[in-house]
Amino acid sequence: MFKLLKTSGSARRGVLKTAHGEVQTPFFMTIGTVGAIKGLLPEEVRQCGGEVILANTYHLHLRPGEDIVAKAGGLHKFMHWDGAILTDSGGYQVFSLSKIRKLKADGVEFQSHLDGKKIFLTPEKAIEIQLKLGSDIMMCLDECAPYPSEKKYVEKSIELTAEWAKRCKQQFSKSEIRNPKLNQKSEIRNQKLLFGIVQGGTYPDLRKKSAATLVKIGFDGYAVGGLAVGEPAPKMYKILDQTVPLLPKDRPRYLMGVGTPENILESVERGIDMFDCVLPTRNARHGYLFTSKGVVRIRNEQYKEDFSPLDPDCDCPVCKNFTKAYLRHLFIANEYLSIRLNTLHNVAFYQTLMKGIRQSIEDDQFGEFKAGFLKKYNS
Amino acid sequence: MFKLLKTSGSARRGVLKTAHGEVQTPFFMTIGTVGAIKGLLPEEVRQCGGEVILANTYHLHLRPGEDIVAKAGGLHKFMHWDGAILTDSGGYQVFSLSKIRKLKADGVEFQSHLDGKKIFLTPEKAIEIQLKLGSDIMMCLDECAPYPSEKKYVEKSIELTAEWAKRCKQQFSKSEIRNPKLNQKSEIRNQKLLFGIVQGGTYPDLRKKSAATLVKIGFDGYAVGGLAVGEPAPKMYKILDQTVPLLPKDRPRYLMGVGTPENILESVERGIDMFDCVLPTRNARHGYLFTSKGVVRIRNEQYKEDFSPLDPDCDCPVCKNFTKAYLRHLFIANEYLSIRLNTLHNVAFYQTLMKGIRQSIEDDQFGEFKAGFLKKYNS
Repeated sequence: MFKLLKTSGSARRGVLKTAHGEVQTPFFMTIGTVGAIKGLLPEEVRQCGGEVILANTYHLHLRPGEDIVAKAGGLHKFMHWDGAILTDSGGYQVFSLSKIRKLKADGVEFQSHLDGKKIFLTPEKAIEIQLKLGSDIMMCLDECAPYPSEKKYVEKSIELTAEWAKRCKQQFSKSEIRNPKLNQKSEIRNQKLLFGIVQGGTYPDLRKKSAATLVKIGFDGYAVGGLAVGEPAPKMYKILDQTVPLLPKDRPRYLMGVGTPENILESVERGIDMFDCVLPTRNARHGYLFTSKGVVRIRNEQYKEDFSPLDPDCDCPVCKNFTKAYLRHLFIANEYLSIRLNTLHNVAFYQTLMKGIRQSIEDDQFGEFKAGFLKKYNS
Repeated sequence: MFKLLKTSGSARRGVLKTAHGEVQTPFFMTIGTVGAIKGLLPEEVRQCGGEVILANTYHLHLRPGEDIVAKAGGLHKFMHWDGAILTDSGGYQVFSLSKIRKLKADGVEFQSHLDGKKIFLTPEKAIEIQLKLGSDIMMCLDECAPYPSEKKYVEKSIELTAEWAKRCKQQFSKSEIRNPKLNQKSEIRNQKLLFGIVQGGTYPDLRKKSAATLVKIGFDGYAVGGLAVGEPAPKMYKILDQTVPLLPKDRPRYLMGVGTPENILESVERGIDMFDCVLPTRNARHGYLFTSKGVVRIRNEQYKEDFSPLDPDCDCPVCKNFTKAYLRHLFIANEYLSIRLNTLHNVAFYQTLMKGIRQSIEDDQFGEFKAGFLKKYNS
């Protein structure tokens, strides 16, 4: 289901077959937390070149609930998106958003950050929810250890993550047997993918152990989790240097929650195929706009009478039709259109970066592309 | 510049020539307060059938300021809208938003609701600002008396409004002489329009006096102001019954700040050609959605599992692609996309209503259209 088309150094150009079409790697997933991109229609993400979006199991479980999404005909139909959807397991939000949680061997008990309701999430339940949502790429429930963590803690944590991964895989396989018509067409059902998540903090031997265990269980793809959680970027790159070679070449590799354009380039160079991050959408809402010459803080006084496009190198509708002065005006006036235009531009910027990355690997020019991009970006 | 094409009873079907194209009457203007429709692109308003939008002089004067808009090449270019723009005079906001104001013969002194800065607005300045914005249809500065008001107060108020109207006309004419190249192409400049505003509260004799004075000064169109400010609807319709016949048949008639679908139908029936109102956009943000069967409060529990379109009679993208359950989910989850989709639908609903009104007048079936619409709407 994953086909490696070309490499440029360790950078990989591939294609991943999902239940909602073939998608080109490396790709970046725009975040649609509750089944909606902040201010955008999914078709606009597609127009920017996005083929996969990410939705959050935790948020959708709380609101509107996976049963309503299932009754609606699945998340694709509910949100009017016929591209691929990756869902996380909910684990990350349980550990980052919920104030009270109890970790047990069975699963994790937590309180909803919305109404304080107690919820018990197990590996099996995480898979069941994702199946009900109609996800194309599902993630195993894991524990993402904070940075920094004692080695002892991380050691126990990767054992739990491995145990849960086994149970997730069992549940995933069982549901395939139990519900052969889960998605009506069996060839679609067969293209549903389950990914395992390598943890291990910043400890190379624990990363190695975690990777080996997961590869032994066997997944459709492997994520590297627990990075970009506060450790310095060089440390992240070093972990990737050590971890990525342990993952099978014939499976996609997903670096969760990463990152800046620099992070993405550095990680593609190390053989990562998939990314997701809130940066383009969240920063848009705060008026931080990505351009080929670096980040523009659009509220700055200097743009008050700047009637040039945000990024002359960008061919998104925002850069074609509006000026920095107008974007600044909308931001200062707190207009809804500000969020929409800023988000559209940042999403377009990230997708354009990914297009450039893919093309450069095809041309076996990834190193040159990376250097050229960063030189301009940091100028 | 206004051509009456057809009547159906007192309802009128016409075409108004503006510096940004011919527009079909009766029409409804979507509000773009600071040069942006809340959450929508102007082209989406056009796709719904909207040909004229309204921008607020008061708001644009405060932020970003008319000089910046002028430097940007005018409001059309600034906000990327090549249709017609009507600007109000700023007077209404001075009286409704500013806490401290001093009415003088010369003009009105007020405090910005944003930073408390004192600003003195004169009839001349109101016109100058609108000219700098590049407005196609400009409004005279007036005083909009609150409801209810003592007759003595309203009597003085219409005198002031008449005096200011005279000065606005002078300023408008002067600027045409002073700046013959104001809009480069002189045929465009010549199509800039100035409207007078009839006031007089709920006093028929004062309305009559105000109308007579304004008609004597002579304007490109006439607005009826000071209605829908708290008086009961039947009183508003009565005032229209008395006032509209006093206005010249060969000029467009604009009922300011109105209103609900019922208000619009009743007013078209009385010979009104132009409308504007915050209702479709503001109500959208509060989750009140207009449908052919009346208003839907989308947050209601009953829509939780309602997978039918919001309005099966509506062919807007929201009704075609999404369900009530999804719109409810977005509203409850406080998603930005909720505002965008709700606004798009309400704007489409109003523009579809206006299309129906225009067609029914052409077919000389306005009475039937109105009765049919209201029967279903109130069912």
